Amino acid sequence: MQIVSLTTLLLLLTSFAAGQSPAQLDLTPMPSSVQSGKGKLLIKRSFSVAVSGYRDGTLDRGVQRFIAEVSHETGMRLDEPNVAENNAVLLIHAEHGRESAEKVGEDESYELTASGSDAKLTAPNPLGVLHGLQTFLQLITAGADGFSVPAVTIRDKPRFVWRGLLIDPARHFIPLNVLERNIDGMAAVKMNVLHLHLSDNEGFRVESKRFPKLQEMGSDGLYYTQEDIRHLVAYAHDRGIRVMPEFDIPAHSRSWFVGYPELASTPGTYRIEPGGVDTVMDPTQDRTYKFLEKFVAEMAKLFPDAYFHIGGDEVNGKPWDNNPKIQAFMHSHALKNNQDLQAYFNQHLEKIVSKHHKIMVGWDEVLRPDLPKNIVVQSWRGQESLATAAQQGYSGILSFGYYLDLMWPAAQHYSVDPMSGTASMLNSEEKARILGGEACMWGEWISPENLDSRLWPRTAAIAERLWSPQETQDVSSMYSRLENLSWRLEWLGLTHRSHEVPMLHRMAGVDDTSALRTLADVVEPVKDYARFEAVKGDWDFRAPLNRLVDAANPESNTARSFQQLVQQYIQSRFKDQGAEAEIRALLTEWRDNDGKLRPVLENSFLLREVIPLSEELSTLGGSGLAALDYLQKAEPARQPWRAQQISQLEAASMPKADLLLTVVTPVRQLVEATAAH
Amino acid sequence: MQIVSLTTLLLLLTSFAAGQSPAQLDLTPMPSSVQSGKGKLLIKRSFSVAVSGYRDGTLDRGVQRFIAEVSHETGMRLDEPNVAENNAVLLIHAEHGRESAEKVGEDESYELTASGSDAKLTAPNPLGVLHGLQTFLQLITAGADGFSVPAVTIRDKPRFVWRGLLIDPARHFIPLNVLERNIDGMAAVKMNVLHLHLSDNEGFRVESKRFPKLQEMGSDGLYYTQEDIRHLVAYAHDRGIRVMPEFDIPAHSRSWFVGYPELASTPGTYRIEPGGVDTVMDPTQDRTYKFLEKFVAEMAKLFPDAYFHIGGDEVNGKPWDNNPKIQAFMHSHALKNNQDLQAYFNQHLEKIVSKHHKIMVGWDEVLRPDLPKNIVVQSWRGQESLATAAQQGYSGILSFGYYLDLMWPAAQHYSVDPMSGTASMLNSEEKARILGGEACMWGEWISPENLDSRLWPRTAAIAERLWSPQETQDVSSMYSRLENLSWRLEWLGLTHRSHEVPMLHRMAGVDDTSALRTLADVVEPVKDYARFEAVKGDWDFRAPLNRLVDAANPESNTARSFQQLVQQYIQSRFKDQGAEAEIRALLTEWRDNDGKLRPVLENSFLLREVIPLSEELSTLGGSGLAALDYLQKAEPARQPWRAQQISQLEAASMPKADLLLTVVTPVRQLVEATAAH
Repeated sequence: MQIVSLTTLLLLLTSFAAGQSPAQLDLTPMPSSVQSGKGKLLIKRSFSVAVSGYRDGTLDRGVQRFIAEVSHETGMRLDEPNVAENNAVLLIHAEHGRESAEKVGEDESYELTASGSDAKLTAPNPLGVLHGLQTFLQLITAGADGFSVPAVTIRDKPRFVWRGLLIDPARHFIPLNVLERNIDGMAAVKMNVLHLHLSDNEGFRVESKRFPKLQEMGSDGLYYTQEDIRHLVAYAHDRGIRVMPEFDIPAHSRSWFVGYPELASTPGTYRIEPGGVDTVMDPTQDRTYKFLEKFVAEMAKLFPDAYFHIGGDEVNGKPWDNNPKIQAFMHSHALKNNQDLQAYFNQHLEKIVSKHHKIMVGWDEVLRPDLPKNIVVQSWRGQESLATAAQQGYSGILSFGYYLDLMWPAAQHYSVDPMSGTASMLNSEEKARILGGEACMWGEWISPENLDSRLWPRTAAIAERLWSPQETQDVSSMYSRLENLSWRLEWLGLTHRSHEVPMLHRMAGVDDTSALRTLADVVEPVKDYARFEAVKGDWDFRAPLNRLVDAANPESNTARSFQQLVQQYIQSRFKDQGAEAEIRALLTEWRDNDGKLRPVLENSFLLREVIPLSEELSTLGGSGLAALDYLQKAEPARQPWRAQQISQLEAASMPKADLLLTVVTPVRQLVEATAAH
Repeated sequence: MQIVSLTTLLLLLTSFAAGQSPAQLDLTPMPSSVQSGKGKLLIKRSFSVAVSGYRDGTLDRGVQRFIAEVSHETGMRLDEPNVAENNAVLLIHAEHGRESAEKVGEDESYELTASGSDAKLTAPNPLGVLHGLQTFLQLITAGADGFSVPAVTIRDKPRFVWRGLLIDPARHFIPLNVLERNIDGMAAVKMNVLHLHLSDNEGFRVESKRFPKLQEMGSDGLYYTQEDIRHLVAYAHDRGIRVMPEFDIPAHSRSWFVGYPELASTPGTYRIEPGGVDTVMDPTQDRTYKFLEKFVAEMAKLFPDAYFHIGGDEVNGKPWDNNPKIQAFMHSHALKNNQDLQAYFNQHLEKIVSKHHKIMVGWDEVLRPDLPKNIVVQSWRGQESLATAAQQGYSGILSFGYYLDLMWPAAQHYSVDPMSGTASMLNSEEKARILGGEACMWGEWISPENLDSRLWPRTAAIAERLWSPQETQDVSSMYSRLENLSWRLEWLGLTHRSHEVPMLHRMAGVDDTSALRTLADVVEPVKDYARFEAVKGDWDFRAPLNRLVDAANPESNTARSFQQLVQQYIQSRFKDQGAEAEIRALLTEWRDNDGKLRPVLENSFLLREVIPLSEELSTLGGSGLAALDYLQKAEPARQPWRAQQISQLEAASMPKADLLLTVVTPVRQLVEATAAH
């Protein structure tokens, strides 16, 4: 995994202190064309909607949800929201219906115009209407005269046809209602694919009636019934979102073997637990394919989407190496290595999947020239492999750079473009094979309680990358719009902001959690795979997710604005008194925080591990304040003092309790600035 | 309505600065007997439960919810929560089943013991088990060694058999899921009756298949289907809660007349809207009773509870006076006045209700010696009328003093006892007729968004009054336990704390709502019926509930703790430096707040009305700081200065935008203290 360096990242994060974005509408994702008009349309209790042209259930239900959301956003019940065409404030018009199958590449465009007196939303089909209604909702703001939508003409369509989010209920089960609210979030930012990673070593999460031991023995009792799935698919479809199932084989498949050990390459009994070398299907035996044939038949019917994801990643060949029968098979079939054997498996699997009228999707590793060109490759390894696939004639979607579980800041995901690097050199036919991308939220450290906070608002930055024109790149604008969107998402029922309060209270066991909140606001979970690397012994996939690292947001807003303030102060050559005062207030709060927080930390077994962080935050506050004093007095600090501060700051930059103190770098900048100025 | 005076209230609120409560467990409602033991039971991932003795669906589902709640409270998945009797950490035993009908007065007692190694919960029937499990959940706290429950023996039973909450979805519809989470809240504090006020002038909220125009024409389309009701009744029953329906007749019944104008005393066409003189049923015609006979038959079947509430309050006799046919009827039946006519109606209605095997419940006004003794009177007028009813042989429940819509502080409700006043003089047979009480949340100013915040945590103070021994009176202890309970209720999904944030954001229209929050934290909605009295013209029952008064909590915690600090500071004769510093910090924040908040207020049509409050908070902060300076310097302030401050404070104590600034009195105390000391 290529990691963007810290320096690059800081540049990304601080560049917006310099950059100035033009006045623009608070929309995420940014539409492809916006023309501002004069005046605004007031949204009053008399606001009403009419639908002309084509209509169907999706459209009608979408309009009713829109009306409910207008009420929710404004706190107003509308007097008579549904009216005849001539009387409507907002007239909605779709030309024709959606394609009957859930197909990739349907027209999702729309045109929305608002004037001082009314508004009109037109689209070729209900999908565009759904997107346009989301845009309209985002345009509503409270102002001095009331709620209103600015006069505007928006012509909008997506840049990529595949804008997905992978959720992994295999590692930690995610209840249906949590999926539903996240589908609402996806719809709000115009994403259109929910990719469910339904099976892995730690759990098999969907009911098979044909092979009930899959979910019964392969889970802790938590799985989606077929009724749940039908409900979910309909729920998503109503919001313009396809649901693509993934059953990850031949590796990542231990949960299958608990009930059906005969599928494994290594004989024995299995229980659900994380990976290990022995969890690969046996691709050399007929019964594996007979099983898969029946299984795919059942699931292909349950999931109407045209795509069927078979995983295919991270196959550890050991069990194949160690099984003489498999070795003999490879020899007799001229399969030179394990990659050949996996390709053999995938060819058979692809025939099964095609037979049930589905297009097979797999991770990078499935890509082999011997597979038919209609399969789709999902790249977690990098943009290069996606470009290579496109050159070879395969369609692909990018997930490299979009792994939300790595706890990157939104700006870092935002900078990843499916068409950059090698892809930018592709010809237009090849480029057309790059369908889009998918944000991935792997579930190892996820619970229903913190899922939303790991998804939102960062997923919206990826949604914008995949929807908006390539030149939409202003990070400062992105962050400012994300903040507003974040509030709107809580109106939809997402809990990415509100989750933290009860989690902190659980840890603290006391009523006043304000000092803990101060610490929580400036820490972030460690990045990339550092949390796994810090695990001593085996990863305990049933471990409680009730630590500060589980509650802390992936990206600290406080740290980002502090970084900006320090930047601004330094650039002003220490003259900006406003910035100085704000910096001083924050540093003082941090310096004094440990005194308040310490008794709470000492009295909680869940919080004791963060005592060093709390101490360091106080020390760092003190260092920053001393540096500020030097800077204010225009008196250079002595080198030994600086050296001591910097050594403390370096210690403070080390992860503790799987958390990082995020304000070390700007404080260091202040300390370093005391050298001379 | 008798209003507790401000002075009494301040005494109530400040008494706990003096009173000292013994160390006690953090339980609400407080059990009837608690014996603390030594040590504690650690709640680890190995925590498990077994059930012996009688078991049924209620009990099994209750235990499964309990296990889920243990997981939720602790953030831990339990390794194997259900085990055999010999291996269980918590052994649960019920002796026999519940009564098959939903009956008042079932045994709800339980006994819970916990030692360092295990725990046991026994009860005569599953109801007691449900209550005991709630107690166990409240006992779990995070400490230095882990989550634990203290060693303890609790023997507990309710003081009153009827511990209810009235919710009024007639004025503003409350969706099913909001009712559900509030049922969870009720169960957490051991309440056992959900009283649904299902019809009123503004809406008829339940589906009648026999008379579908009731809900179709008598509502804005928002009502509970019969399927919803069955689901809700089962949901509540599983949590030991009865659901009692109320259909308010003969007055409060305009919504009936929209579809069935022939029931009205005044001919004409009707639409749903608030009261007025013409909304009384015609009790003189046979068709009214024929209609009610069929209607009650249908509803009696839908609601299994043994009680059926017919309302009967606030009958305005004008339509009867004005209708010659009704006047002639009264004359021919020797009915001397409208009270006689209502009694005539109630006698007929009671026969219908009894015929369907229900016990009729009505508000005070139904009480007439000519009604059979088995009816139940719900008193909104006062404790006297309840005592009178008991003397006359009627059972009764108290709601006077428990009207949550009056926005009283919890302490004020807590001080109201069904057995105080006249009731304390009743003999034991008469006392037994006082079944308990009901908190009432009338829905005129309620939305699904703010309902929870108007109910919780104040309802728990009433729940404790009705469950715990009469001598449980320590207000300080009640508030401290309420605060902890309040967090636990958010784990159950209630939104009484989290609702405010998105509501403030909607008003502010900007991302940083901290200054608005500072103001919101020290205001409370006006008390009693002052909000109605401030309405100019007719009350607009469809008016948006999106103002600061709709978001602000009924009781300001900040104000209460500020009041305590000031009390403490004054009692220390201005020597308590810690209190002084905290007071100064708050006053400074308030003084400086208007500067930050002003641009936000001026830019929002929803917030412009609170500009005077924001100004006054700043002025008041300044006055308080000046007073503190005098007090610190031990220098008396001049009388003209004091007079000026007090005149400003008096202006600040006047309601604005239907809100009260709650910190005026303590600041005034500081100012007054500057006279001499």
